[in-house]
Amino acid sequence: MIDRRSFINCSATCVTSLVAASSAKAKEPELSVSSVNGYDYRRPKFKKGSRLLFQGDSITDMKWGRNQKDRNHYLGHSYVYLIAARLGVDIPEAQLDVYNRGMSGHKVRDLKARWQKDAIDMKPDWLSILIGINDVGRTVTKDKGLEEWEADYRFILDASRKANADLKLVLLDPFVLASGGLTDPSAFKAKRAIVDKLCAIVPRLANDYGAIHVKTQEFFDQAARKVSPEQWIWDGVHPLPQGHELIARNWLQAVSEATNKEV
Amino acid sequence: MIDRRSFINCSATCVTSLVAASSAKAKEPELSVSSVNGYDYRRPKFKKGSRLLFQGDSITDMKWGRNQKDRNHYLGHSYVYLIAARLGVDIPEAQLDVYNRGMSGHKVRDLKARWQKDAIDMKPDWLSILIGINDVGRTVTKDKGLEEWEADYRFILDASRKANADLKLVLLDPFVLASGGLTDPSAFKAKRAIVDKLCAIVPRLANDYGAIHVKTQEFFDQAARKVSPEQWIWDGVHPLPQGHELIARNWLQAVSEATNKEV
Repeated sequence: MIDRRSFINCSATCVTSLVAASSAKAKEPELSVSSVNGYDYRRPKFKKGSRLLFQGDSITDMKWGRNQKDRNHYLGHSYVYLIAARLGVDIPEAQLDVYNRGMSGHKVRDLKARWQKDAIDMKPDWLSILIGINDVGRTVTKDKGLEEWEADYRFILDASRKANADLKLVLLDPFVLASGGLTDPSAFKAKRAIVDKLCAIVPRLANDYGAIHVKTQEFFDQAARKVSPEQWIWDGVHPLPQGHELIARNWLQAVSEATNKEV
Repeated sequence: MIDRRSFINCSATCVTSLVAASSAKAKEPELSVSSVNGYDYRRPKFKKGSRLLFQGDSITDMKWGRNQKDRNHYLGHSYVYLIAARLGVDIPEAQLDVYNRGMSGHKVRDLKARWQKDAIDMKPDWLSILIGINDVGRTVTKDKGLEEWEADYRFILDASRKANADLKLVLLDPFVLASGGLTDPSAFKAKRAIVDKLCAIVPRLANDYGAIHVKTQEFFDQAARKVSPEQWIWDGVHPLPQGHELIARNWLQAVSEATNKEV
């Protein structure tokens, strides 16, 4: 038998804790497509002063200001801006140095052509790459181009690793949803079939190069099922602000998992 | 005396709840300048399909794409984009319709000059205004202009309320920090003295017009004390991405408090 005082003390703590726990539960959104817990994310760990470089096509580019002295626009308005904004508030002590060198319309071969200046010479500590959608149906068709795509991608990863053996890599799958001009089923199907092939390559590259892999197509599919494709991507290819937010949250979660694991 | 079974049941719940509560505590960042709890925010309540209009100067503008058909850039890269991105993920069912009509360089009299087209005719359900910094030292000096500034601001608020009695208003204080060209103490002091006068007017307007008030200068001061002015604002006036993130978080908190209070 337990004495009354112990029980009362325990009960008070119970009540307090249960109230706290149920308040926390009440805050959870009814509909959340984010794979991050509610909206509280575990902060990634970065060495102080880390230089983060984001590379890719228009989805990354989003009109970052080529005059880098103008700090109003230096990151453009993509997931890059969202990531930098968030980390700048939540881990200001990390003093992250963020760069956007995405370029609208670029394919992997275009990255290769400018890789020395726009990736190697920039000496990043972290390199994040989202590329592929512009290759689809052009350099990579249903019959050919896949091997060359992979070879070009490996070329730039080899070059980056050679320049910096400690480079941290993040590779994002290209993606497409059936919205805008891609609501036409056969147009979408053809495009998606090729994107799927690229999405089979990126995880292999991530594995081979010790990169963090962000399953962009997967979470966009999940989000599209929960709400609609049009909620996230307006023309089949380009994310709306909330689509960029999905990319940012999943990028942060993947990087957080990887960096909080390391001892 | 309490029987053993009750005590054991209570203890188990205690332990579970305490573990949950302490895990939640462990997630709190060591340094957080956000006035939002950690980074989990309580979602504001909006009627479905609400139209949100953001007005102001360059801090709001941030190059939103004047071709509104291009949904890549329709919100520019300011706190407006951050708010829309976040709410688009967390309350997609609200189907918010977000507009940015901030214009670089504008003073309150410039808003007044275009108010019919860029505020009244847009028929917003929510209207958020951040204006004043361009008036400082120009239309409002240490000696004059304050009354006219307030009169012009009241003019546009009157017009908006007349067009829509149910309009929800959010008014943000203008702000300035001692960074960039404003690290010069006398330059900063002169500018800040006038901003402070505007910051005395905005809460009065918020009170008179039943608006939600966002204490922008206050939280930027707090953030500057915790880290540095340069972390948030690069030239004394324009926020960096994390500065915009601070505005977004505080805007969301203020709107969340107001909308979750209503029965």
